[in-house]
Amino acid sequence: MKGCAFGVDIGGTSVKFGLFDGQGRLLDKWEIPTDKTDGGAHVLPDVAKGIRGKMNDRGIAPENVAGVGVGVPGAVAEDGMMPGGAVNIGWGSFNLVEELRNCLKLPVKAANDANAAAYGEMWQGGGRGCSNLVAVTLGTGVGGGIIVNGRLLTGATGAGGEIGHIHVEDQETKPCNCGNRGCLEQYASATGIVRLAERRLTRDGKESLLRSRRVTAKAVFDALKEGDAVAGEIALEFGEYLGKGLAIVAGVVNPELFVIGGGVSKAGDILFRYIEPPFRKYAFAPCRGTGFALAKLGNDAGIYGAAGLILHMGS
Amino acid sequence: MKGCAFGVDIGGTSVKFGLFDGQGRLLDKWEIPTDKTDGGAHVLPDVAKGIRGKMNDRGIAPENVAGVGVGVPGAVAEDGMMPGGAVNIGWGSFNLVEELRNCLKLPVKAANDANAAAYGEMWQGGGRGCSNLVAVTLGTGVGGGIIVNGRLLTGATGAGGEIGHIHVEDQETKPCNCGNRGCLEQYASATGIVRLAERRLTRDGKESLLRSRRVTAKAVFDALKEGDAVAGEIALEFGEYLGKGLAIVAGVVNPELFVIGGGVSKAGDILFRYIEPPFRKYAFAPCRGTGFALAKLGNDAGIYGAAGLILHMGS
Repeated sequence: MKGCAFGVDIGGTSVKFGLFDGQGRLLDKWEIPTDKTDGGAHVLPDVAKGIRGKMNDRGIAPENVAGVGVGVPGAVAEDGMMPGGAVNIGWGSFNLVEELRNCLKLPVKAANDANAAAYGEMWQGGGRGCSNLVAVTLGTGVGGGIIVNGRLLTGATGAGGEIGHIHVEDQETKPCNCGNRGCLEQYASATGIVRLAERRLTRDGKESLLRSRRVTAKAVFDALKEGDAVAGEIALEFGEYLGKGLAIVAGVVNPELFVIGGGVSKAGDILFRYIEPPFRKYAFAPCRGTGFALAKLGNDAGIYGAAGLILHMGS
Repeated sequence: MKGCAFGVDIGGTSVKFGLFDGQGRLLDKWEIPTDKTDGGAHVLPDVAKGIRGKMNDRGIAPENVAGVGVGVPGAVAEDGMMPGGAVNIGWGSFNLVEELRNCLKLPVKAANDANAAAYGEMWQGGGRGCSNLVAVTLGTGVGGGIIVNGRLLTGATGAGGEIGHIHVEDQETKPCNCGNRGCLEQYASATGIVRLAERRLTRDGKESLLRSRRVTAKAVFDALKEGDAVAGEIALEFGEYLGKGLAIVAGVVNPELFVIGGGVSKAGDILFRYIEPPFRKYAFAPCRGTGFALAKLGNDAGIYGAAGLILHMGS
């Protein structure tokens, strides 16, 4: 194995870089703002400049770099094509791997950012030692990444693991951001939890700490830890939807483990008390033993996973 | 590539054998009854005898056999272990691949029978040319097999692709065979269609050809083709459940294609008229273009897939 690799996580606001040694240890990390002018035309040159700059600073010769892994907010096909570009960056359809490789003269691999984060959690985070897992990100939306036999499940159009948009509620009247009704994301994301809370709080006048606070997902779980009964009802409803959704996912891909990350996961282990009982109720018997763990890498999951595409894949 | 391979499909009633040339053409097929006495102890020796007999008859030298693939009615781990054995055969937990290899002195690979059938359909059937697909078997139950990048998705406990038991109906009061309530199988299998039909026929006295016939899945689709309105309503309900279920599956693994097989699929292309509209309604936008095709190999899918494990995998 060559001496080191770079992991790059390109987001709509910033580009995060990590330099890793051959054993996957993070040696250095830094970030730059994402320059979205000119349809994102400066982003890849900026990435190349950042990597070359670091190689110069540290005296790293190209022959000692195993490669550069990149996570991007869009679907990436196996050959590096981004058929739908990346709306948040301004990119249209192009081959990201080819372009960055021509620029850097180094091996390049790329993946969707949620998938890269899932890969990072498998390699060095909450899913370490496990080669069949589903990483679930409970943030503004619900994202997901699926690892099968140690490899990312990309899917035919790069939508593999987009479990936020599986249908879990027939009675929903409000549309999801995707246009459908009854998506998992409408109940299990931070925004979804706020919706459940608001719906619950307007149903009756029952006393709750939440009535005197700004209602956020964090506020709900904080109130829950303070023993608030209404927060408990909201957490039960959230857990029922997420447990049901993950039971369905388990029936399809039968992972060893779910790794739960994203802002909502900061509530900690208490989440599992609400997710696991409905999960076991809805799951097909051979999948009932699936484990649950918290993600460990936080915002670094993307750079870890991107570097892992270079250092870990096929190993 | 060596000259030929054997594909064996071990079922509760019979063991089917196929001899294939290196290009995957079926040269010969035959079957024997499954001897389930003594906890299924004679089944593998019978398989070995069948293969050795055919090699003798045709003068095939061991060095010309690429290997033997086997499909079995139970979960098979990557290393050939069957942790749960096979209830229909009488087998307890053992390593099938190891045992048959010791017996035959030939390379052996094994997979669950539904997964082997899916692999067969990908390799030589309705999914030919496609390396990301979900094969759905609509029989007494609903079975499934998932292929990702040309490889079977086995899952942590061999339950990968068991899509018959994903939850699609919150209001169900009757239990599924698996013990849960609201499984896809309760509406989309041959048995499920009969349930939907009986429920529909008892709801009112509306005239229908089905009132004078024995109600089977076939009778429903026959009546539908004769223009029967009640059969049309049943088909709509069946299609709503199956379309919704497959939309969920697409949101998880994002296949290129669904290949629909099993007894119910004998109704033909008319099925897609009932499955596809609800599928497109419930599917996440990037998955809406997923194709649908009928399975082509019928009862031979298992022997094709088993041989494909030897001749096709990793090619």
